[in-house]
Amino acid sequence: MIDKFLADEWHIVEEGFAPETNRFSESIFSLGNEHMGLRGFFEEGYSGDSLQGTYLAGIYYPDKTRVGWWKNGYPEFFAKVVNSTNWIGIDVETEHKKLDLAKCKVKDFKRVLNMKEGKLTRSFVWVESDGKETSFVIERFLSMAENSIACISMTAVPLNYSGTFSFLPYLDGDVSNEDSNYGEKFWEEVNRGMNARHAFLTMKTKKTGFLVTTAMHAKLLVDGKEIEPAKELLARDKYVGYKMEYYVEKGSEIQIQKFVSVCTSRDHEEHVLETVTVDKLVSAYCSGFENLFEAHKREMEKKWEDSDVVIEGDVKAQQGIRYNIFQLHQTYTGKDPRLNIGPKGFTGEKYGGSTYWDTEAFCFPFYLYTDQQVAKNLLYYRYLHLERAKENAAKLGFKGALYPMVTMDGQECHNEWEITFEEIHRNAAISYAIYHYTHYTGDHSYLYEYGIEVLVEISRFWADRVNYHPRKDQYMILGVTGPNEYENNVNNNWYTNTMASWNLGYALVSLDDIKKKDEKRYREVIAKLRLTQDETSKWQDIIRKMYYPYVEELGIFEQNDGYMDKEQILVKDLPQEVLPLNKHWSWDRILRSCFIKQADTLQAIYFFPTRYDVECVKRNFDFYEPRTVHESSLSPSIYSIVASRIGYKEKAYELYLRTARLDLDDYNDDADDGVHLTSMAGTWASIVQGFAGMDVKDDALVLRPSVPDQWEGYAFKITFRGRHFKIEVRKGQVTIGQLSGEDVVVEVFDKQYTSKAGNSIAIAC
Amino acid sequence: MIDKFLADEWHIVEEGFAPETNRFSESIFSLGNEHMGLRGFFEEGYSGDSLQGTYLAGIYYPDKTRVGWWKNGYPEFFAKVVNSTNWIGIDVETEHKKLDLAKCKVKDFKRVLNMKEGKLTRSFVWVESDGKETSFVIERFLSMAENSIACISMTAVPLNYSGTFSFLPYLDGDVSNEDSNYGEKFWEEVNRGMNARHAFLTMKTKKTGFLVTTAMHAKLLVDGKEIEPAKELLARDKYVGYKMEYYVEKGSEIQIQKFVSVCTSRDHEEHVLETVTVDKLVSAYCSGFENLFEAHKREMEKKWEDSDVVIEGDVKAQQGIRYNIFQLHQTYTGKDPRLNIGPKGFTGEKYGGSTYWDTEAFCFPFYLYTDQQVAKNLLYYRYLHLERAKENAAKLGFKGALYPMVTMDGQECHNEWEITFEEIHRNAAISYAIYHYTHYTGDHSYLYEYGIEVLVEISRFWADRVNYHPRKDQYMILGVTGPNEYENNVNNNWYTNTMASWNLGYALVSLDDIKKKDEKRYREVIAKLRLTQDETSKWQDIIRKMYYPYVEELGIFEQNDGYMDKEQILVKDLPQEVLPLNKHWSWDRILRSCFIKQADTLQAIYFFPTRYDVECVKRNFDFYEPRTVHESSLSPSIYSIVASRIGYKEKAYELYLRTARLDLDDYNDDADDGVHLTSMAGTWASIVQGFAGMDVKDDALVLRPSVPDQWEGYAFKITFRGRHFKIEVRKGQVTIGQLSGEDVVVEVFDKQYTSKAGNSIAIAC
Repeated sequence: MIDKFLADEWHIVEEGFAPETNRFSESIFSLGNEHMGLRGFFEEGYSGDSLQGTYLAGIYYPDKTRVGWWKNGYPEFFAKVVNSTNWIGIDVETEHKKLDLAKCKVKDFKRVLNMKEGKLTRSFVWVESDGKETSFVIERFLSMAENSIACISMTAVPLNYSGTFSFLPYLDGDVSNEDSNYGEKFWEEVNRGMNARHAFLTMKTKKTGFLVTTAMHAKLLVDGKEIEPAKELLARDKYVGYKMEYYVEKGSEIQIQKFVSVCTSRDHEEHVLETVTVDKLVSAYCSGFENLFEAHKREMEKKWEDSDVVIEGDVKAQQGIRYNIFQLHQTYTGKDPRLNIGPKGFTGEKYGGSTYWDTEAFCFPFYLYTDQQVAKNLLYYRYLHLERAKENAAKLGFKGALYPMVTMDGQECHNEWEITFEEIHRNAAISYAIYHYTHYTGDHSYLYEYGIEVLVEISRFWADRVNYHPRKDQYMILGVTGPNEYENNVNNNWYTNTMASWNLGYALVSLDDIKKKDEKRYREVIAKLRLTQDETSKWQDIIRKMYYPYVEELGIFEQNDGYMDKEQILVKDLPQEVLPLNKHWSWDRILRSCFIKQADTLQAIYFFPTRYDVECVKRNFDFYEPRTVHESSLSPSIYSIVASRIGYKEKAYELYLRTARLDLDDYNDDADDGVHLTSMAGTWASIVQGFAGMDVKDDALVLRPSVPDQWEGYAFKITFRGRHFKIEVRKGQVTIGQLSGEDVVVEVFDKQYTSKAGNSIAIAC
Repeated sequence: MIDKFLADEWHIVEEGFAPETNRFSESIFSLGNEHMGLRGFFEEGYSGDSLQGTYLAGIYYPDKTRVGWWKNGYPEFFAKVVNSTNWIGIDVETEHKKLDLAKCKVKDFKRVLNMKEGKLTRSFVWVESDGKETSFVIERFLSMAENSIACISMTAVPLNYSGTFSFLPYLDGDVSNEDSNYGEKFWEEVNRGMNARHAFLTMKTKKTGFLVTTAMHAKLLVDGKEIEPAKELLARDKYVGYKMEYYVEKGSEIQIQKFVSVCTSRDHEEHVLETVTVDKLVSAYCSGFENLFEAHKREMEKKWEDSDVVIEGDVKAQQGIRYNIFQLHQTYTGKDPRLNIGPKGFTGEKYGGSTYWDTEAFCFPFYLYTDQQVAKNLLYYRYLHLERAKENAAKLGFKGALYPMVTMDGQECHNEWEITFEEIHRNAAISYAIYHYTHYTGDHSYLYEYGIEVLVEISRFWADRVNYHPRKDQYMILGVTGPNEYENNVNNNWYTNTMASWNLGYALVSLDDIKKKDEKRYREVIAKLRLTQDETSKWQDIIRKMYYPYVEELGIFEQNDGYMDKEQILVKDLPQEVLPLNKHWSWDRILRSCFIKQADTLQAIYFFPTRYDVECVKRNFDFYEPRTVHESSLSPSIYSIVASRIGYKEKAYELYLRTARLDLDDYNDDADDGVHLTSMAGTWASIVQGFAGMDVKDDALVLRPSVPDQWEGYAFKITFRGRHFKIEVRKGQVTIGQLSGEDVVVEVFDKQYTSKAGNSIAIAC
């Protein structure tokens, strides 16, 4: 854990420069606008430790797989998020000395991320060895209004001398990924151009052939007035820039504004790409820094208007949830159905490929409860990959569809046999999201039109993947890895067996439903998928005879066969210095231990809030939580929600804080290579599904709200079946304000109320 | 399978050039002399597919570990056998056209490995596009008499033209490993030198800093008379050579003899290395090709005299066993206790590091039964690594010693968690070899002086690695991989549990034995190892309460927990096209299947021939063998021996052929990257321990011989407690000829006889 940032409701503030944790700060101070994003590295260059990263949504490189020992079935490549042209670069010199915070004395260093406005500001005083002092203020934002545009402003004041300043704004395409498997560079230059006004660089990814044009324009102002010094043009392979020098009097203010436009061949025809990019740049430049910022800020305000969660009485918790929501908006807004939610967003290279089961299992509720269309896009993304999922299953010798563990374009990227081939529960999360969408929205159109095909193909996979045990007359699922990746290659993971069986059942129910409601479509589906009675009978047989490991004497589900043969120790009895285990124990020791990385048995209990009675949930929670080390960012939110449901308020709050401030406080000592984007949605869910106890029953919106003791109250907005709500929970009272839409039933603590647009219902609780 | 070589008792003959299987032939035609060795690649260079490999015993490179996903505990490097200076190179030109079998027409191509003499001969006619024909005969041997010396003779005859020949003998140090993890070259040049008579090259491995000097001298003869044409000296970085041209009349014979000497800093002080190497070269050169060959042949004859196995009535079986014995002698003679038996010997790069559990579990009997001193050296090798094995255990969080899975210098090299961390049964094989040595030889000196420390430290590991299950009141060993690597991370592998428990028992028995026989040494051991009563009591408790999986209804040992939950299919019911499974099935499918890579449960049954009654062995054999795919070269020999013991003659013979001709017939489609050296000792054992049923009971040599129906008979020699025997088994009679030593009791089919030196006992059977 690191306690680095000041508590503040709307800002992340770092005071003083700490080079040893610079990578961590770079992650935290990342910015993005769904189209592009970058880490918080420095404009002026920095020779100290830094992970320079500038990323573009959907632009990837199929990096040849690297393994120690090849296993049959491994994919040929791992799709990597590509570090692309560095467009923030502005080299700075005064009196021919280059600014580099790794090599000089720095005073009054401060970084502030304004989450409300989406702006990063850095300020410091550069102290040279001869005593010259220059103050700097540097601001940047990535426009949420026009997402190919970004702006930087850098203002310098020579505090105790007069002298010549030189600024060298540039575009540098000669960048590489730190995690390149073979030290390869992923980009080649296609074209570059420059004139006195602007410069551009067009780069192309090898293999995938994505074209990216980046264009820049810079202007110089002294004490607010634009000046036009001579420009020295600098160009070389993969690089364009120009140098501008100006003599500045002591106390005067010299400012460079850099305007950047970035467009890709994903969005534009190749032959017009450069023209479009430069046009956008010129238009941005003409608008000017202030106007662009205003437009951006308005977009940010709209985002916050709909999605802010207000917490009263706990600044750190407030800061945490806002940081999570802020990063979610920066990364994914759901406009582009070809995109998905990368586990690091635009904050690092780690984990490459963009899509994990994180999307369906952890991120989905956030989008589902706030914007139904985005949720539908996320489902549709998987439908687009169905054929590839079928190829993937076939490659491993199975019928039906096995969705990849990690993917960029539907193909499997990952290459650890115990994960790639065995962590098959991911398939069920995709089915669950279809169920969740349909159940929450009441909209069956996705299920009928697309979802049913996904459900059937996934069911076929399960039916082929189980094995029948004739002596026991039961079905088993051998050789799997559950959500708890601290067990590999186990038999009969309770979560996987439960979800597989549920999945088969939901496919059958859905088929029946379509048959009743739209027989034409039903016949179409049966014909297209060549679904037979034999198949569905087998599914029924599997559901009837699925084996579920169970610990009789404790009345709990057994995580997997053999789990109870392990030495049973609680996390609290471990010496503090061995945590996190993944940094201190050898892998086999972790595997042999009873310690759990993230919710596994509890994940299914979370998914089905009404299936298990409270006492059963408590028994499982009481057993598994004390054995869970939460070394996945995806763990605490799920446990927090379940804790809320069973009235474990203190535990729910403790786990909420852990998820909300996971990155800000660097709980797992691993945020230096990027933040945990997908778990951030889980933070939101631990308030809405957890503390507020939100769910849907038939057509009613259900709430069972509570307030952590440490808070005065909290408020959030949701959308439910075309209606907008503002929910405010305070100690002793919940207020449900319906902002729009038709009347609807709201159930609070098992009592039903009719809610109307424009009205609020206040209920004591 | 490939049927490429002619059946012959003493030769491996390939007729016709088949470029598509050239790598496979290169493996088969490898030569070695324990000090050095090389694959059967061509002297004149070859632009087609080839794995050029020239290796030196004990010279390795710590290649930085390459993995896809790092797991805590992985070693930093994998020690690689290094491809080193190519000293066979002789470029050949006639009339300025370069000889390259990939680019010309070839007639009458033939390769013959003379196993009796240890010589490789290659002959062919080079047909040029203009019709010119030149015949070539090329011979090479690596001296077994002076193992730093090798000789090559190349004889050419222009058959239908006269013309200028040029020969360019060279040394090329600019070679690399195909399996280099990062495409790195492992060598740098230290020095080179040449004069009109000889040339040398001194290279040094990076990181490990081994120095190797290679020197050469070549002479030219026309029709048997030496000539001295002008030499054009050619030298560049890592390369020395010289070109000699001569005009040859049609039908005349031009011959180049190349003498090579190779010495390393493992054997010589660095400052004298070059002098020593050149001195040896000069001395060899003065002896001349014929004399050197004679001396070499005499050594080969001695080897065969002691170790030949004669099989009557089955040429292919005879060829198979001789090829195995030949390769064993080429690779390891046990002179240097710092060396061990690499799984590919000098025939390829694969598997890098030199030492696997193969040595103790499969190779040991061959050496033990033929040369007790070599066997003792193999044990001593592990004693030398005891401290490192303790470090290795500590690194994984355990007490005691865990010997590495793969090593060159005692440090673990391997990096698959399921193997490196979990295939811990290897430890027991080291203990077993100590037991086997002591039991067979009756010599307790190794056990008392060194072995006891190894046994205690390994026992400490076991005692720490088990976990006690309070509810069941049993000890378990969770998370292991047994000898059958087609199951990973299983609980309670019966073999591992059995061997661990046996190992603890043998350590206790040995301690008692020392205490009785040499109390001083006993006190020394206790003090040195700080062995306490608590520890040994714990060992006794573990032995008493070890858990062994068992299948009641079948009366067999269960390979591991959950094995019987798998779908039970027999290998014979698999479609032929999915075999070998490791080339056709994805890894997870293999893991989930019931198919067994190599003897696992049966491995322990093999180790303890008298522990289990025949019916019990039969039940286990009948169950497990039909589920075994024998996709490890180490599998068929063990099953063959057990089959012999229970009277399954046909099965024993079928499996014998599979082990004996594994490489010659390329059973597992994988000999292109080297032969299966360590399994070759198992072939020998399947005759001696299998067909002949050899064992030791108290102080008697035990035999239960049988003859496969396909054979007339067989004969072999062994050494037992200082006595030499020749055993001849024919249908109906076994003859035990004692060649030397004191009287001894021999037991044949449970009847005892007294054997005397110089006498033969013929027993009907």
